[in-house]
Amino acid sequence: MERVFIKEILQSEPGKSVKLKGWVYKIHNLGKISFIILRDKTGLIQLVVEASDREGLKLEMPIEVIGETVVNPKAINGVEIAVQEIVKIADIHYDVLPFAINMGEIEANLENQLNFRSISLRNPRVRAPFKIQEEIVEAFRTFLKNECFTEIHTPKIVASGTEGGSEMFSINYFNRRVFLAQSPQFYKQMMVGAGFERVFEVGHAYRAELHNTWRHLNEYVSLDIEMGFIESEEEIMDLEERFLIYLFDHLNETCQKELELFKVELPKINKIPRIPLKEIQRILLDDFNKKSPEGNIDAEGEVIISKYIKEKYNSEFLFITKYPVAKRPVYTMPDAADKTLTRSFDLIYKGLEITTGGQRIHDYEMLKQNMIDFKLNPEDFSFYLDSFKYGMPPHGGLAIGLERLTMKLLDLENIRQATLLPRDMKRVTP
Amino acid sequence: MERVFIKEILQSEPGKSVKLKGWVYKIHNLGKISFIILRDKTGLIQLVVEASDREGLKLEMPIEVIGETVVNPKAINGVEIAVQEIVKIADIHYDVLPFAINMGEIEANLENQLNFRSISLRNPRVRAPFKIQEEIVEAFRTFLKNECFTEIHTPKIVASGTEGGSEMFSINYFNRRVFLAQSPQFYKQMMVGAGFERVFEVGHAYRAELHNTWRHLNEYVSLDIEMGFIESEEEIMDLEERFLIYLFDHLNETCQKELELFKVELPKINKIPRIPLKEIQRILLDDFNKKSPEGNIDAEGEVIISKYIKEKYNSEFLFITKYPVAKRPVYTMPDAADKTLTRSFDLIYKGLEITTGGQRIHDYEMLKQNMIDFKLNPEDFSFYLDSFKYGMPPHGGLAIGLERLTMKLLDLENIRQATLLPRDMKRVTP
Repeated sequence: MERVFIKEILQSEPGKSVKLKGWVYKIHNLGKISFIILRDKTGLIQLVVEASDREGLKLEMPIEVIGETVVNPKAINGVEIAVQEIVKIADIHYDVLPFAINMGEIEANLENQLNFRSISLRNPRVRAPFKIQEEIVEAFRTFLKNECFTEIHTPKIVASGTEGGSEMFSINYFNRRVFLAQSPQFYKQMMVGAGFERVFEVGHAYRAELHNTWRHLNEYVSLDIEMGFIESEEEIMDLEERFLIYLFDHLNETCQKELELFKVELPKINKIPRIPLKEIQRILLDDFNKKSPEGNIDAEGEVIISKYIKEKYNSEFLFITKYPVAKRPVYTMPDAADKTLTRSFDLIYKGLEITTGGQRIHDYEMLKQNMIDFKLNPEDFSFYLDSFKYGMPPHGGLAIGLERLTMKLLDLENIRQATLLPRDMKRVTP
Repeated sequence: MERVFIKEILQSEPGKSVKLKGWVYKIHNLGKISFIILRDKTGLIQLVVEASDREGLKLEMPIEVIGETVVNPKAINGVEIAVQEIVKIADIHYDVLPFAINMGEIEANLENQLNFRSISLRNPRVRAPFKIQEEIVEAFRTFLKNECFTEIHTPKIVASGTEGGSEMFSINYFNRRVFLAQSPQFYKQMMVGAGFERVFEVGHAYRAELHNTWRHLNEYVSLDIEMGFIESEEEIMDLEERFLIYLFDHLNETCQKELELFKVELPKINKIPRIPLKEIQRILLDDFNKKSPEGNIDAEGEVIISKYIKEKYNSEFLFITKYPVAKRPVYTMPDAADKTLTRSFDLIYKGLEITTGGQRIHDYEMLKQNMIDFKLNPEDFSFYLDSFKYGMPPHGGLAIGLERLTMKLLDLENIRQATLLPRDMKRVTP
């Protein structure tokens, strides 16, 4: 007999003989019979087991079960299995579990849950964000492929940084000092120029930032986009807006169970407001007496302005535009009207920056001069700069932090809840 | 007017006014008019341009064109554009291109092509393998999602190796020595145990191997699979077989142009032979007087046996099974019948190993003892080993090297032709 998943049973008629595999999730012994809740990848189901068959069963033991599906309105999902045969297919080797995983939310702090990651993830609520995450990635790819984008894979071992600053991890590469890529920025631009025109990448990015907060990871998954032959950065914002509309529709279709578990309703996205940074800073100061750092807003400012935008525009999203040159990387296109500003933007979602994007400089001489203005040596970047000599079209792009987007979608408190195996300043295991 | 892609023009009726964007690929000046071949992401098309409009145009310059589509049987694909307006949208900054890219195959050696990667990739033949590669990844994901697999993203920053040996790159991680992951092996197993049951990952893997050959990369994309609740490694081979059948069908549907460009016909895959290593070594020795290294076959042996299998079984693929314990990693399940052998396999495709896989040890005590037998300290691997205490089902998996599969599919000579931006012992740029 072929093994079936629990969700397949729920979709088919009762009265059938089935083979199931999974873990023992709960045990209720009631004298002559036991109710055992079996958990597999796809859900939970009640097993009705004779006393003689339950011997030696322990929580989290992998078992195989043959039995008949029976309607029982009192059981989870209204169906249970009258078990004919139950086989232990692997041993357990513990006295007590590190924490209970079958009592709703896990009562262990996040650190402890992360230490025992392959246990905590067995809790359906802990695992749910990764269904959301998988569907974000699926929607990202499907949406972009429909818009004629090509998926690329670029190196994470690089000879120099892309974002300025010194926040890079160094690697010993055959006795040469190289680095982990902060982003695929240079390479996605080069691939636009190489004829792909429109590219995206789902890949790791590395930041050696000395921040150990609820919203920082030192290794994260970056959803990167770069698009050639654009007129301005407005097209990049248009693209992200269309993607988010597509994404919310996709999640409503595929993740209803997970969204309900977290009591999240995804609203209809209309036009996302696009407001220059200076105006945002003025609102924060005038309406909320909140000062901002030069050329940016801080984390508290992001929260305040998000609430303001939600009330005024009924939007959970906000594009902040026209950041100053001094606060953006060397490749950012200056604004035509005011050379101290750039054609760049951030996207704020529920009080947190989840995207940085903009138009890039595409002219060789302009980029070279900008490097000099930024006190960088163009020769250090020749592998990148030289590719601008041979006809680089106007282009722009963006990057979305996958874990940040997942976290905010489900209103999670900590980005580590949206990361299978997080890497932060203190954690490199499991 | 909205910009259209060249392939859209080829699919629609002539006589329309259109806007195109792309690069100047070829220029033929014929007195009063010029024929210019425009290249965009999707193809090539002939522009008919008045002499007055062609001034300043140079090869590889990005341009925008407005004109009317006209039938001309002599033009590429039978259609050309009678140009009304032509606009340069970006400057070029070169005297001569590093090599001609518009004359069929590029006449520059591979090293030079890699040095100028964003130029060489503009050649349609150089770019074609990446269409194939993209569709391999697409097929991999679609096939596995249909089989109830979950896509995961696991850390590439790790505290210890997975494959034994010392072939790892070290990272300075906040003054701690950690490593780049050789594979997601431990993590994909842990995620099976964490309740995902069936997982896959498309991600980078790193090998600090001192090989600089046509088939080695130090950073590559690994297509990883791990599957729980299996009976034996045969199920994993079954899975790969089904994937390859699916893949070939998918490529025949989506990449006909690219396959024709490389004169490749993808045969119908039937049952792939599964032959124990000892038997393969015996055939090599008896029929070809070819000695093999202990517990493996060498690169020459892979080529010879592939030809033999092609002739005898009409298969381009071969599973070699039952490698000895001493030649497989510590997590490999020993064979029940002969404890010196393992439940493992390699897949050889056209003379090259493209997959390693097998069933893994799932019992905590057995895995711990195996670590000791392998002279490893179980405490060094506690983050992995401990997850086997809490009920790990029988499981197995495999990894496919994406670049190797791409290379062999198209009969490319060097793995770097199947890598956008290769990393090898000598190369970390571009």
